[in-house]
Amino acid sequence: MVARSGEFDLIARHFAPIAKRDPAALSLKDDAAVFSPPPGCEVVVTTDALVADVHFRNIDTPETIAQKVLRVNLSDLAAMGAVPGGVVLTTGYNRDLPEDWIARFARSFGEDCATFSVSLLGGDTVGTPGPTFFSLTAFGYVPAGRALRRDQARPGDVLAVTGTLGDAALGLSVLTDAFPGLDELSKKFLSDRYWVPQPRLTTSQACMARNARLAAMDLSDGLAGDCRKICDASGVGMTFNLADIPVSEAAKAVLADDPACWNQILGGGDDYELLIAGGPDDIAALGDQVTVIGTVTNQTGEVLLKDLDGKMAELAPGGFDHFK
Amino acid sequence: MVARSGEFDLIARHFAPIAKRDPAALSLKDDAAVFSPPPGCEVVVTTDALVADVHFRNIDTPETIAQKVLRVNLSDLAAMGAVPGGVVLTTGYNRDLPEDWIARFARSFGEDCATFSVSLLGGDTVGTPGPTFFSLTAFGYVPAGRALRRDQARPGDVLAVTGTLGDAALGLSVLTDAFPGLDELSKKFLSDRYWVPQPRLTTSQACMARNARLAAMDLSDGLAGDCRKICDASGVGMTFNLADIPVSEAAKAVLADDPACWNQILGGGDDYELLIAGGPDDIAALGDQVTVIGTVTNQTGEVLLKDLDGKMAELAPGGFDHFK
Repeated sequence: MVARSGEFDLIARHFAPIAKRDPAALSLKDDAAVFSPPPGCEVVVTTDALVADVHFRNIDTPETIAQKVLRVNLSDLAAMGAVPGGVVLTTGYNRDLPEDWIARFARSFGEDCATFSVSLLGGDTVGTPGPTFFSLTAFGYVPAGRALRRDQARPGDVLAVTGTLGDAALGLSVLTDAFPGLDELSKKFLSDRYWVPQPRLTTSQACMARNARLAAMDLSDGLAGDCRKICDASGVGMTFNLADIPVSEAAKAVLADDPACWNQILGGGDDYELLIAGGPDDIAALGDQVTVIGTVTNQTGEVLLKDLDGKMAELAPGGFDHFK
Repeated sequence: MVARSGEFDLIARHFAPIAKRDPAALSLKDDAAVFSPPPGCEVVVTTDALVADVHFRNIDTPETIAQKVLRVNLSDLAAMGAVPGGVVLTTGYNRDLPEDWIARFARSFGEDCATFSVSLLGGDTVGTPGPTFFSLTAFGYVPAGRALRRDQARPGDVLAVTGTLGDAALGLSVLTDAFPGLDELSKKFLSDRYWVPQPRLTTSQACMARNARLAAMDLSDGLAGDCRKICDASGVGMTFNLADIPVSEAAKAVLADDPACWNQILGGGDDYELLIAGGPDDIAALGDQVTVIGTVTNQTGEVLLKDLDGKMAELAPGGFDHFK
């Protein structure tokens, strides 16, 4: 164990320099931070916690863990149509964690905050005898009354997703040597997708610019299970077309070897892509930022998948029975 | 180990009913919550984490832990002059914690939110193999530009505190049988003060109503150390008068037996009382909500204590050398 500074020193040394960029943080030297939404805007707030060896692997690098802590929350803001504003970060460092690890975490966290124009407004740093944990609360701004919600899907809507699905779930498998025959470039692509999500803020703002009725959410626990949250909130059903699900070249290589991996792609977590429902014209206006994968039905709570042979079957939250 | 529901069930069963009170929470069923500060107000945000056997004792009741999690954050809002608005709560439950414990925590948390008119806007519930932890982020509202800050103390100001100091530190000692000769009523009073802090929101609003230059902070790590944060931020020094430090009858009983306990009173944590600096008239206007305990000097960073014999000596962050 390397000798480590106390809580106040850790904050002063590694986090206060990041916070200095925004006067709202009061240099992390007051009891709290103060900020205002832009005129005409509401505050959107979300919080997500990550625990070592539960939400990330203890052997992952502090650099990618820092990016993940920030980005899973920015993904929630994107799902609401919000522009990120600031974050407060609580860190519970295992007492044996060397200060160098914390320094690397803070450096990466600060760089990622700058990438997304997010201010570190405050936080709390504590020691714990247990696994290291992070709890981040993110604020964003959205024009009053216009947040993208889960209850706005209507029968006849088109369903679309950003990016490609399943890469992160396959990436986690790569890290446990699940696909020994896969080429190295594909392995790297998939594990990178597991380590560092891409919050879809640009597409989110394209949705907002359209100023139309759209439902949206981010996929953190897999399309098959998460889509039911829009079904429940909107009182609708969904039908997906397997042939239309966007998958990366790397995922295609995995599927060529083992079609059962469709279940990981449909039911696995950590995608952080957006699922969007809206009228055909409004979805079409998003252009190639999204891929149309299905339609909204009036069969409340019923989620169906048309497989590659054109056969229709129920899509269970954990994936597709066909492949089990 | 008692069988326990999954994360979604835990939220739906124990926390969603609390969140239902405020439409901003979107029933905890969306990616994030949406709220607005009242017209002319800014948002004040603070966050504090509590870890089992670090910030509370694992054997404390879930009811008092829930109150502490909420109230230490409300105390920060009080220190800024803010009216509490909402909170997001992240809970990391040890996997062996029975669901009944969580149910009791949630019930108490909901009741305390109602007591302080605070909305539960969202959160995250995760399992951890390590100690149970809570991370709460609280929002409050303050008229724009008028937050109470630590950098507003000026030489010649009067220093005042709310309540009585040291009860919580002595209470923690009571819980480890430090004062076997103390009467039971005093023991109960002191341990209650350790378990359940009283955020000084009424006094905070009295400060705001005065609309004067005031500096404020809440005392979480003891007067002797914490007062330096106002000294640093304002570039001032302080002199305290030991005879004026407000102590409870129970603390007086402890001191009668062992005057060295002054060190716990001055240097111990968990008071969550407010330290306020301001002009004599502005402090006097707060009436008996506060006790005047000293003055602000121009000796930057110098903190002195006049003892009961009238002798002046340096007050170290951990307490007063005289008693060591």
